[in-house]
Amino acid sequence: MNYSIIRRILGVVIQFTGAFLALPALCGLFYAEKQAIVYAILAIVYFVIGKIIASIKLESQAYYAREGLVIVGLSWIVISILGAIPLVITKDIPSFTDALFETVSGFTTTGSSILTDVEALSHTGLFWRSFTHWVGGMGVIVFILAVLPMTGGYNMNLMRAESPGPTVGKLVPRMKETAKILYSIYFGITVAEIIILLIAGMPLFDALCISFGSAGTGGFGVRNDSCASYSTLMQGIITVFIIMFGVNFNAYFFIIRRKFGEVLKMSELKGYFGIIAFAIITITINIRGMFPSLFMAFHHAAFQVGSIITTTGFATADFDQWPQYSRALLVLIMFCGACAGSTGGGMKVSRIMIMFKTVYREIKKYLHPRAVTNVTMDGKTMDRSTIHSVSVYLTTYMLLFFMSILAITIFENYDLETVFTSVACTFNNIGPGLSKVGPTCNFSIMQPVTKYILMFDMLAGRLELYPMLMLVTPAVWKNT
Amino acid sequence: MNYSIIRRILGVVIQFTGAFLALPALCGLFYAEKQAIVYAILAIVYFVIGKIIASIKLESQAYYAREGLVIVGLSWIVISILGAIPLVITKDIPSFTDALFETVSGFTTTGSSILTDVEALSHTGLFWRSFTHWVGGMGVIVFILAVLPMTGGYNMNLMRAESPGPTVGKLVPRMKETAKILYSIYFGITVAEIIILLIAGMPLFDALCISFGSAGTGGFGVRNDSCASYSTLMQGIITVFIIMFGVNFNAYFFIIRRKFGEVLKMSELKGYFGIIAFAIITITINIRGMFPSLFMAFHHAAFQVGSIITTTGFATADFDQWPQYSRALLVLIMFCGACAGSTGGGMKVSRIMIMFKTVYREIKKYLHPRAVTNVTMDGKTMDRSTIHSVSVYLTTYMLLFFMSILAITIFENYDLETVFTSVACTFNNIGPGLSKVGPTCNFSIMQPVTKYILMFDMLAGRLELYPMLMLVTPAVWKNT
Repeated sequence: MNYSIIRRILGVVIQFTGAFLALPALCGLFYAEKQAIVYAILAIVYFVIGKIIASIKLESQAYYAREGLVIVGLSWIVISILGAIPLVITKDIPSFTDALFETVSGFTTTGSSILTDVEALSHTGLFWRSFTHWVGGMGVIVFILAVLPMTGGYNMNLMRAESPGPTVGKLVPRMKETAKILYSIYFGITVAEIIILLIAGMPLFDALCISFGSAGTGGFGVRNDSCASYSTLMQGIITVFIIMFGVNFNAYFFIIRRKFGEVLKMSELKGYFGIIAFAIITITINIRGMFPSLFMAFHHAAFQVGSIITTTGFATADFDQWPQYSRALLVLIMFCGACAGSTGGGMKVSRIMIMFKTVYREIKKYLHPRAVTNVTMDGKTMDRSTIHSVSVYLTTYMLLFFMSILAITIFENYDLETVFTSVACTFNNIGPGLSKVGPTCNFSIMQPVTKYILMFDMLAGRLELYPMLMLVTPAVWKNT
Repeated sequence: MNYSIIRRILGVVIQFTGAFLALPALCGLFYAEKQAIVYAILAIVYFVIGKIIASIKLESQAYYAREGLVIVGLSWIVISILGAIPLVITKDIPSFTDALFETVSGFTTTGSSILTDVEALSHTGLFWRSFTHWVGGMGVIVFILAVLPMTGGYNMNLMRAESPGPTVGKLVPRMKETAKILYSIYFGITVAEIIILLIAGMPLFDALCISFGSAGTGGFGVRNDSCASYSTLMQGIITVFIIMFGVNFNAYFFIIRRKFGEVLKMSELKGYFGIIAFAIITITINIRGMFPSLFMAFHHAAFQVGSIITTTGFATADFDQWPQYSRALLVLIMFCGACAGSTGGGMKVSRIMIMFKTVYREIKKYLHPRAVTNVTMDGKTMDRSTIHSVSVYLTTYMLLFFMSILAITIFENYDLETVFTSVACTFNNIGPGLSKVGPTCNFSIMQPVTKYILMFDMLAGRLELYPMLMLVTPAVWKNT
């Protein structure tokens, strides 16, 4: 294990955390809140400490998949801890465990909250909380790769460990350029959402925070009722944008390059929009009676489906009160998640599609034992190792999922629906679950130990399991 | 598709169903119940019709995996329908859907019931109901292979489609001999249980039915309170036997042949007893306060863990009232199931172990990218195709599982715990679930269409998915 490279990159991460804190400090300055001072001081402290750590001499520049996973896992823990400190000092969230839960939930773009009254927070705190979504959405390390000249050709190992989905597509030959393109697209669409929400009449502060939350598919709002009190028009705009942020960013890259043929070839896109259409239509029918008009039923169904399949977790209606079919379908699309290469969480549509195709291939094999049967995506044959890694991912996912449920029931005596959906919505980075952790409730009812289990689940879910699993495997830490 | 061989074997299955019905007819004769006449007449009718169908000339003797799966799937549907008819005619269960649910539940050794008052049934009906467990436990086709001289060397395709577990171990070179040995062991242990229960003071009728239910790991009782009113000693005997029936029968074969070294090498056995020990100990601690003594807490924990991990489903206590940890752990071991090559259902311990080992191998691969890493079971390296088939099984399992839940919520508006556990306990062939389908409740509350979905799940679970999936795949029925 190359510890010196881990130290170097963690130093850079600390530096960047300092830089990130400058933004809420500016926001606090604008509102003349004294909390801004705390953020400003911490920004400088983090930056200097990070700089010092990063400047210690490297023993070797070489690092492999192992270091890549460990670095990514540790980076996300470090940035969450550092991000929680200003919330504690400013007393916006006095308990460290709660503050850490909130920042882990923020960076992992989960959006689960322990706050009962978000409107009581300072603007500085609320801004920081929403901004963590934006940073976490595309990835902390990807951001660093995009802006910093990094030495060595090993950065693919970092990018791969942080990017969502079964395969990482290099858009252009150089990793750094790929990261830059991704962040430019991300930045562009976010700015577009802010402007359109402003035009629709949303206050600037809300427009910024809601756009951060939808861009990262996070789900932290700035009002106690999430998005319920915004106008139907604003909710509609948010619906369109969250669904856009759940699209594989490669599609936007192709659109910019005018390669429309490539976009049409993306099987995952068809799956993604197909599932969304199916869910919206059937839920609209199912909840029709609860709303005054067909349009409003459609509106709320669309918002909720978009919000949950992209694992954003904003709410306009208390879907915990909806009929069982709608509740069950929403839980299912929690697991499904958005496209690979988007900011959304969950298992990813492409993995689900590969699973279905693998099962269908198995049936075909019985029919034609001697025929060569392949699983194809985007018109290309998938190689065996990708299919294998999808299966292993599912296996790991299920094992971690059920072990989390069991661990939580040791400490909590809530009904299984509460426990099941609280793991489902943190592991898939959604936000609200059902029953006692439904959209009108929050996670403050849980014991501290449960909160740490759920934090692990959020990080494992966002980083696609292996970085977090590596950290708890003793053999990883032996210097072989 | 070789339709003539399908017809031939279905004819034999119908014949055997007639033969099976002779037993409850005898039982009814003993109790001088008029229902015996119905069973006797149907026995003759089935036997004759089956004989006629089976004697139609074969076009070809060759058949492959495809035909094997289709034959097994159809056989189980046919035997369930034929088995339901006497229950309807005798008015023991007047509704055909309910009677079919009961026989599917019986043959698949699920033990879920739609009856609110089992004690109201005739002895003939009760005997038949329990006997279906015994027949289904080791397998209808396996039974036929054991007793009938079948032509052709293709019977492995049938045996493989009906036997539980990721691999089918041939005990001896000839399939027929393997089937005979398995049924002899099965018969022997069942007789042992009957005798020991009689010695402990259980009435003969109860001893027979309870032994059938535990041998097949089914779970139909003959009293309204399942096993709660039997003495602690009797319950203890049942506990030991159900756990024995969850063991891979290869172990008994090795013991008979005095190959004790082979038994000790079986990784799955260690996993099976390890999980049982862990579950019993932790549940005992968890429910300690609900029982007057540590022994009684242990006694009920052991009975319930044995009953659920082997997917039997007998109950001595209403575990739906136990604390959440115990409830959650019982749900988890529902999925786990017993050993491959036993009469138990669920995913099978060996599959779970292969999954854990596959995940661990994945982590090791990151640590030593160039090292050759293998998954081993029983001291031997598993071949890639077995590992692949376990992954595909899990994928298929999860997809079918969630699709069933979604389908049911269209028709039922029960809480998700009820829906989730009703699918979990039918798909894994357990019997009782939690909440509205808990051990003190039953499935009579469900709509007919839901019952048919659950019947599909029971059959899919018992036959390890593919035979039932084949039946609903249109391409299978094209004669290529």
